[in-house]
Amino acid sequence: MSDQHQSRPGGRTARVRADVLRAVDDLTTEQPLAQLTLAQVAERSGVHLGTLYRRWGTLDGLLLDAVAERLTTGSPIRDTGNLHADLEDYAHRVAEDLSGPDGQLLLRTLVAVRLGTRAELPPALTRRFDEMQALLDRARARGENPPTLQQVVDIVVAPLYTALLFGTTPADPATLVDRLMRLHPDQ
Amino acid sequence: MSDQHQSRPGGRTARVRADVLRAVDDLTTEQPLAQLTLAQVAERSGVHLGTLYRRWGTLDGLLLDAVAERLTTGSPIRDTGNLHADLEDYAHRVAEDLSGPDGQLLLRTLVAVRLGTRAELPPALTRRFDEMQALLDRARARGENPPTLQQVVDIVVAPLYTALLFGTTPADPATLVDRLMRLHPDQ
Repeated sequence: MSDQHQSRPGGRTARVRADVLRAVDDLTTEQPLAQLTLAQVAERSGVHLGTLYRRWGTLDGLLLDAVAERLTTGSPIRDTGNLHADLEDYAHRVAEDLSGPDGQLLLRTLVAVRLGTRAELPPALTRRFDEMQALLDRARARGENPPTLQQVVDIVVAPLYTALLFGTTPADPATLVDRLMRLHPDQ
Repeated sequence: MSDQHQSRPGGRTARVRADVLRAVDDLTTEQPLAQLTLAQVAERSGVHLGTLYRRWGTLDGLLLDAVAERLTTGSPIRDTGNLHADLEDYAHRVAEDLSGPDGQLLLRTLVAVRLGTRAELPPALTRRFDEMQALLDRARARGENPPTLQQVVDIVVAPLYTALLFGTTPADPATLVDRLMRLHPDQ
């Protein structure tokens, strides 16, 4: 009823988040990550420190949001109509992203933020799961028999993460996607 | 040549490690983990603080060694001669262990210690991989066509770890083992 006197919450919230994530990206190119503080991000973004604490909880929470956004923007899901090729492209990008510093930051902050807490996934990862689900839905609409989202995560994504964790050589992404596509329908 | 005047290095090293890991186990049942320090472990175990730093580097390194030892000792690999049943038993134990506080500690310290470093896996995990390899070798010797160790890790273990990371419901361990055992031989 008093809409005229307020910013729409979605709009302002999204704008604040964009300002903050841009400040994080700027600062992390200028200095070692280990020296970054929430106070610096507040100063650079012009957003109150209290707002950062309320919204992200910790520096790791903010870094997780920023790095998930950066990685998913840099590695969009391709949708060419050929599910096998699109999944292989996706698997290659995940493998490549995880082998770099941003991938390691993603894994480290995911663990720091989410273990033992009910913290939500960062929006970029939730969006990524939604996009993958949409890719699979379109394949089904074309008459294919696509795997489920959980099968994609378990068979293709999971081994790439644990290779990083155990320090082993990850399986070839193409092998992982072949394995997924040849799956017994009930598996 | 002066063996009489020295402890054998393997023996002393193993004894020191056992004393230290026992001290960690004692201390972590007595107080919150977040309050534990290397100095406390030195005092309780009677091992010099400098030795702890040289050997484990950080508190997380020591906790990783201790929790990996505790989990693998508590969940031994069963070898009944029925590979499918043994792998299913193993998968259930991994799923159960990862859902508890020790499993979360393992994941957190693995990430803290190993990301971006060349730190070795804790001995208990290396031993666990060796035991699993031996289980698979015995199946092959019986005339079966077992999966490789990497396939066991990628198909059964990896999805249980990433479910913890992404906060999703992990797949049923029996389903993961079925998937592994039905694998196309080249996959």
